[in-house]
Amino acid sequence: MARPKAALVLGVGPVSGLGSALAKRFATAGLQVFIAGRSPSKLALVAQAITGQGGAATPVIADATLETDVVRLLATVAEAGFDLEIAAYNVDSNIPAPLLETDLETFTKLWQQNSLGAFLFGREAIKHMLPRQRGTLIFTGATASLRAKPPFTAFAAAKAGVRALAQGMAREFGPQGIHVVHAVIDGVIDGDRARNQFPKFVEAKGQDGLLQASAIAETYWQLHCQHPSAWTHEIDLRPFKEAF
Amino acid sequence: MARPKAALVLGVGPVSGLGSALAKRFATAGLQVFIAGRSPSKLALVAQAITGQGGAATPVIADATLETDVVRLLATVAEAGFDLEIAAYNVDSNIPAPLLETDLETFTKLWQQNSLGAFLFGREAIKHMLPRQRGTLIFTGATASLRAKPPFTAFAAAKAGVRALAQGMAREFGPQGIHVVHAVIDGVIDGDRARNQFPKFVEAKGQDGLLQASAIAETYWQLHCQHPSAWTHEIDLRPFKEAF
Amino acid sequence: MARPKAALVLGVGPVSGLGSALAKRFATAGLQVFIAGRSPSKLALVAQAITGQGGAATPVIADATLETDVVRLLATVAEAGFDLEIAAYNVDSNIPAPLLETDLETFTKLWQQNSLGAFLFGREAIKHMLPRQRGTLIFTGATASLRAKPPFTAFAAAKAGVRALAQGMAREFGPQGIHVVHAVIDGVIDGDRARNQFPKFVEAKGQDGLLQASAIAETYWQLHCQHPSAWTHEIDLRPFKEAF
Amino acid sequence: MARPKAALVLGVGPVSGLGSALAKRFATAGLQVFIAGRSPSKLALVAQAITGQGGAATPVIADATLETDVVRLLATVAEAGFDLEIAAYNVDSNIPAPLLETDLETFTKLWQQNSLGAFLFGREAIKHMLPRQRGTLIFTGATASLRAKPPFTAFAAAKAGVRALAQGMAREFGPQGIHVVHAVIDGVIDGDRARNQFPKFVEAKGQDGLLQASAIAETYWQLHCQHPSAWTHEIDLRPFKEAF
Repeated sequence: MARPKAALVLGVGPVSGLGSALAKRFATAGLQVFIAGRSPSKLALVAQAITGQGGAATPVIADATLETDVVRLLATVAEAGFDLEIAAYNVDSNIPAPLLETDLETFTKLWQQNSLGAFLFGREAIKHMLPRQRGTLIFTGATASLRAKPPFTAFAAAKAGVRALAQGMAREFGPQGIHVVHAVIDGVIDGDRARNQFPKFVEAKGQDGLLQASAIAETYWQLHCQHPSAWTHEIDLRPFKEAF
Repeated sequence: MARPKAALVLGVGPVSGLGSALAKRFATAGLQVFIAGRSPSKLALVAQAITGQGGAATPVIADATLETDVVRLLATVAEAGFDLEIAAYNVDSNIPAPLLETDLETFTKLWQQNSLGAFLFGREAIKHMLPRQRGTLIFTGATASLRAKPPFTAFAAAKAGVRALAQGMAREFGPQGIHVVHAVIDGVIDGDRARNQFPKFVEAKGQDGLLQASAIAETYWQLHCQHPSAWTHEIDLRPFKEAF
Repeated sequence: MARPKAALVLGVGPVSGLGSALAKRFATAGLQVFIAGRSPSKLALVAQAITGQGGAATPVIADATLETDVVRLLATVAEAGFDLEIAAYNVDSNIPAPLLETDLETFTKLWQQNSLGAFLFGREAIKHMLPRQRGTLIFTGATASLRAKPPFTAFAAAKAGVRALAQGMAREFGPQGIHVVHAVIDGVIDGDRARNQFPKFVEAKGQDGLLQASAIAETYWQLHCQHPSAWTHEIDLRPFKEAF
Repeated sequence: MARPKAALVLGVGPVSGLGSALAKRFATAGLQVFIAGRSPSKLALVAQAITGQGGAATPVIADATLETDVVRLLATVAEAGFDLEIAAYNVDSNIPAPLLETDLETFTKLWQQNSLGAFLFGREAIKHMLPRQRGTLIFTGATASLRAKPPFTAFAAAKAGVRALAQGMAREFGPQGIHVVHAVIDGVIDGDRARNQFPKFVEAKGQDGLLQASAIAETYWQLHCQHPSAWTHEIDLRPFKEAF
């Protein structure tokens, strides 16, 4: 008998954020969604939102930078009896700074949260997907994944690493049935964070000038649904008004 | 009262080809599909296939390299009373040759069918879409759009031009509501052409080792459905086994 | 006995331009320089400048877009008894225009002067270099070779074609001893043209804010001098102040 | 009175390696060369080789992954009374492994030696160069800097980070007179390491089929000599026979 199917999102924060939107979309498709992040209260709110819309969510506290946490996170999905259909690495940690004011700690932290976490998550997710020769693994990238500009140089170094990881994983595991995608989110995602931090910017952007998290989530889902004869490895997503 | 909606595909050949698959997919979504190409008999067969599946197709004989034909083609859609929702430039003319054996005529022909046709089609489609500030314009690219390798240098020069056109159009008209996409088809599309020309290659590729035209078409349609706050400009599509 | 060595530059205009600077640099290295372009009077002035600095220059009237002219141009070098050491395609024709105001003639002309000319020149130069398994072939590119932005979309399509040509030629003929280079000139070249057309822009740029043609020429020459074990295919050149 | 000028190379190993070749080239140009690495015996041999050719070399034991070492290294140059003209980060640590066999320690170590070291070295070198608004900073990259392929995925993630760092530094400090270059070394460098580890591969490559370290060094020096109106940020270097 087939085991039930699950989705996993690591990097789930506020209900209005991208991690939450991804989880909601995957739940809408009928998957049990494991939502992981560092904040129990935020996870609880997202789980509640998913339940409220008729979905099923399991919150898991996990720090993407800790190998033990990531290993345990993936084990949790398997031990609960689910096949992992789709896994999204959605951690996106940015600390802008002029290069000469970027200290060792900041540079290291950005690498840990972006690159190292992506490596651990990707490796463990693939381990769980390989026996079935099936599964989609998506990494959330940014404009900086492709271009390094001050004051985002350290962030760009970390995100470029994520992009390389995704590319190498796609080449190694695509022929074994694992669909690895790198999504370049080029612009600001609408949500509480943007509206609180720079309200004037948000207002100036006008309608659909910021990325709707639910719109990104829809594309992630469609990528998961692609037929194996025509898979996408890299995709860019930006508001129609965004200069690029 | 709203006018009915249409799709347009230029570069429609055999029923098993990509142009035909795009037209079928757009018809399935309920759009009247205008299918254009140089072969009346091929267009008739594709139109028949679409009608057979319950769709509505209008064949238009047109040579992508002739300005008058392209202008007339777009006018045909408008004069028939339709709003153009999605337009795909699917002409893909390739003539492999070592560089020193590439003559002026071949180099010119490849440019005309790939770049020049894309320019004319894009320009005219945008003219028809701009008043409504709405519409999707997709160009079919190839591996060679990104990398030039012998014996495909002249082809690559032409396809690189298409890619630049799509990018420039996206930057100029995206903010005015026109969604311009460049799709990099990386691999061989399954169909009569491939099966007749290199049957052993096709066999060696195995299941899903060639791109299914219908799978590409599904992604084109999903790109059209993207929310304007999260548009994709460039996407790659390849079989899961394909080395890249 | 070894034959004397020559350089060839196609796309030589005013004395203050890049074509002229390339010719001067190659002449300084002791090569007989064949300078080609459409304006007899401009060629005469450049030849005079080269002679004045102790070099040897041969002007050849040639239109890069005419196959007969390009074939004749290369034959001229060979028939004069020279081995062609370095050949530079320096034609750079740009006509900015919004896409909807770009007519068929403009689009075609830009392709002819940039892409078609590069194809003809590259093919013929390689024919002359191959027997000796030696020679450097450099194409002058632009920012638009890599990115298409309005109002330069048609120009970008043409320049992207040049880049693909250079890449394909490098892959096909590098292993046979021909060094093919694509140089991305990212910025405005100082000279009469810039100073007459937009004097305020030039002034605002300040010292070394515009590319010195002689500085570009020096790098072209150094690329020619590279050891075959460490060749460069693509290089970017921009003023230190230039945003990129 | 002007202070004497120095070059600095971090990542100096065997005499036949690239670090050594860079140091020799800079010494030939008359600069005092500070050579840094982890092996006192190797540094001593390189210093001896430089002295033997009439140059001046100062060995400094330093671990690129330790902030204190890198800070001290740069201070050593300044305290010795030299102006730092050119600084090269030449550490290139690679540990091939299938992704599922890549452990946390390996992934971390590759990041430390490639990315973290490049960050520390670049930041400290720029601090020393900025007051004079002058200096060249070169990072040695690899094929993997641009493309991630198994079994080099972790290496590629680290090298992609270096590339982003170089790009961000170029954008931030170019306008302040610091010339930042990223050199993509695409192929195998000739030397004891290659000849000992894979002798058959070396033999099969034939003459000039491997990169000569001295040829790379010559290009690094020419990049340093570029006029500020025409600087290169990224350059590729590969043997003429190398497929790419």
